[in-house]
Amino acid sequence: MKQSRLFTKTSKEMPADADSANARLLIQAGFVDQLAAGIYSFLPLGHRTLEKIKTIVREEMDVIGGQEVTLPALTPKEPWTAAGRWTEPGKEVMFQLEGRSGKEFGLAFTAEELVTPIVKKFANSYKDFPVLVYQITDKFRNEPRAKSGILRGREFSMKDLYSFHLSEADRALFYDKVAEAYHKVFKRCGVPAIYTEADGGSFGDASHEFQMPTESGEDLIYVNDAKDYAWNREIVEGIKNGDQAPDGSGTVTEMKAIEVGNIFPLGTKFSAPLDFKVTDENGVEQTVIMGSYGIGPSRVMGAMVEAMHDDKGMIWPKNVAPYHVHLVSLHSKDEQILNRINSVASELHDDLITAGVEVLWDDRVGVNPGPKFADADLIGLPLRLVVSEKTLNEDSVEWKERAGGEMSLVKLEDIKDQVIAWLAE
Amino acid sequence: MKQSRLFTKTSKEMPADADSANARLLIQAGFVDQLAAGIYSFLPLGHRTLEKIKTIVREEMDVIGGQEVTLPALTPKEPWTAAGRWTEPGKEVMFQLEGRSGKEFGLAFTAEELVTPIVKKFANSYKDFPVLVYQITDKFRNEPRAKSGILRGREFSMKDLYSFHLSEADRALFYDKVAEAYHKVFKRCGVPAIYTEADGGSFGDASHEFQMPTESGEDLIYVNDAKDYAWNREIVEGIKNGDQAPDGSGTVTEMKAIEVGNIFPLGTKFSAPLDFKVTDENGVEQTVIMGSYGIGPSRVMGAMVEAMHDDKGMIWPKNVAPYHVHLVSLHSKDEQILNRINSVASELHDDLITAGVEVLWDDRVGVNPGPKFADADLIGLPLRLVVSEKTLNEDSVEWKERAGGEMSLVKLEDIKDQVIAWLAE
Repeated sequence: MKQSRLFTKTSKEMPADADSANARLLIQAGFVDQLAAGIYSFLPLGHRTLEKIKTIVREEMDVIGGQEVTLPALTPKEPWTAAGRWTEPGKEVMFQLEGRSGKEFGLAFTAEELVTPIVKKFANSYKDFPVLVYQITDKFRNEPRAKSGILRGREFSMKDLYSFHLSEADRALFYDKVAEAYHKVFKRCGVPAIYTEADGGSFGDASHEFQMPTESGEDLIYVNDAKDYAWNREIVEGIKNGDQAPDGSGTVTEMKAIEVGNIFPLGTKFSAPLDFKVTDENGVEQTVIMGSYGIGPSRVMGAMVEAMHDDKGMIWPKNVAPYHVHLVSLHSKDEQILNRINSVASELHDDLITAGVEVLWDDRVGVNPGPKFADADLIGLPLRLVVSEKTLNEDSVEWKERAGGEMSLVKLEDIKDQVIAWLAE
Repeated sequence: MKQSRLFTKTSKEMPADADSANARLLIQAGFVDQLAAGIYSFLPLGHRTLEKIKTIVREEMDVIGGQEVTLPALTPKEPWTAAGRWTEPGKEVMFQLEGRSGKEFGLAFTAEELVTPIVKKFANSYKDFPVLVYQITDKFRNEPRAKSGILRGREFSMKDLYSFHLSEADRALFYDKVAEAYHKVFKRCGVPAIYTEADGGSFGDASHEFQMPTESGEDLIYVNDAKDYAWNREIVEGIKNGDQAPDGSGTVTEMKAIEVGNIFPLGTKFSAPLDFKVTDENGVEQTVIMGSYGIGPSRVMGAMVEAMHDDKGMIWPKNVAPYHVHLVSLHSKDEQILNRINSVASELHDDLITAGVEVLWDDRVGVNPGPKFADADLIGLPLRLVVSEKTLNEDSVEWKERAGGEMSLVKLEDIKDQVIAWLAE
């Protein structure tokens, strides 16, 4: 993609209404645009990153047998009355509205009451279980204070997976499978999330969250020595940094963190009021046991910016960066040299794309090196390659990774293979 | 995909509330579920077909330089007041609601007022034009009578592309490019759509629709002899079947049809009230000229069912069928033969998937051939392959295309290559 054709531009000005680092950087880099508090448009660069996160989530849900559906956002009142959520939490959380003839609708903020009647229509033998259904759609919340950029929106993207079982043991087995899938999702995204024990909220039982440590996090978690398990403050009241871990495995470190995913045992909270019962293989009628499992791709994207940026801009890992490579060609006053720069850059652009590397080529003429480098740092693609008179004097391209490391020169004849090897690392 | 794992099932019963052939067949085959009038859930098979249509649309939009974004569905009142649409059509078309503190929102039914201010922020030099932006998201309409299944929903998927130009000539040039891209989209989907001259509606100028002839269509069009151009009744009042074509090119045939796409010149209807002006390359300030271009993937899916079904079920073309092949393995009372049937089917399933062929394998045990064949006809995958005692006696698989043609036997050693060749046709 030629940057001269990208319709968005970066901005040096800090947006007046940015309420967080993620909002500020994503807006300045042209990834998103704020339409209202908690309501964002995803522009080409932001759209690409969001879609990559969604694709990783989708792939891992498919691996564990999830079947993808798309449920509506605009939903009639009726299904929400079964478990009482039309009134509790009701308008506190759900946008409610009237259509023609006074018909009442709500905008889905979750989907237990929508998916359960559908599964109930089809799953009527024990052989049909477990049933694993998910969707990746925008959800809506009537937030009292929409803030923190795309971390907490009134409209936000959400992957919600629901599982249906005939025994608690089967539910527990699948719960661990989802936890494993979530670990893979976050690893592929480059998000260092920690599996965290948490309160079950309105559902009673314990649940788990995936928490990403970052200074701007709203949650407080207590992490074990191995840094692979933590406890949310809400379940370990009075604990302090350095105290013994609740499981006796050593001491805990207090960290601020952002929740990027959660898994919940639902028990029969929704299946009981919806009268979803099936006879199990022993001939015993069981009220179906459910679990629900969420990851918010837009929230993950915001959390990544919070945790991975510096004073120059964002720092995207390979798998979710909008493009892998920022190819920057510089100006020369010598027309012959300029032509060489442009033809080398153009050829490299085409070669890399043919090899499956995604390239944003800053081909803009009349823009000085300083602003070009500042743009590359702000947008934060993982690898920057510079073609200039200086690098061509060495038959080379300048190589610089956004996450750190030294600049180096790579010979023109080697650059393509080296990029491909780097991408496959 | 093993059919025994697919959580949906077909139904022999006609749904009581189906208002059209597409609703009836899509519900019976388990592609969709109706939540309320005009509001449908897309279940795994329907979700796959809808995503395939969206992917084809996306690819062709990218070819003509479209840049994909995702704009919100939940939008504040303010942008909609600029061109007056908050009140006209207002609630007649737009779902409107209140959030906390009485803040007014509308659910986007289109996005001119959302996308124009964004493009205005970035495009301020003639070098930035044209700008071509699109999204594929769900839109919402407060329909007085939601009907015709997924053809006319309260919530529906819509690809909306917007173009921005500094001259009418450039706009007209792009208009033709979009028309060409739309022809490609419909050709790839297997939809025989006819380019149809239509009224510009509230935008004044003439516009074009893509109309798919089918008996259940709501529109009446007059098609030329070459069957590649038509006129919507609204612009040729009083014309009759067999009359001379408006362009003098012969006679016209009257047909019922469903609109599956449209392209509109917008002029300055939105850019003028939003004060979007840019100095062109001649130094003259121009109010930006816009075009808008729609395709509804869910509507296309519904139209395809209307036009392509028989009394047994749906008939999907290869490119948008949820799977390419319906592999059906039959029962045998002889356990040894049954094992052979299942191992041949299993191997073929795996081989085809490895070769990139999408297979739904009806592996259900205890289901008779009759219901299995009825299911295959109802779901309508383009190619049915049967493995049974009878076919294995001939070292063969039975080959039957859903769209017609004879049954034949294909030798086991040839079947994989023949399927791959058929898919590439």
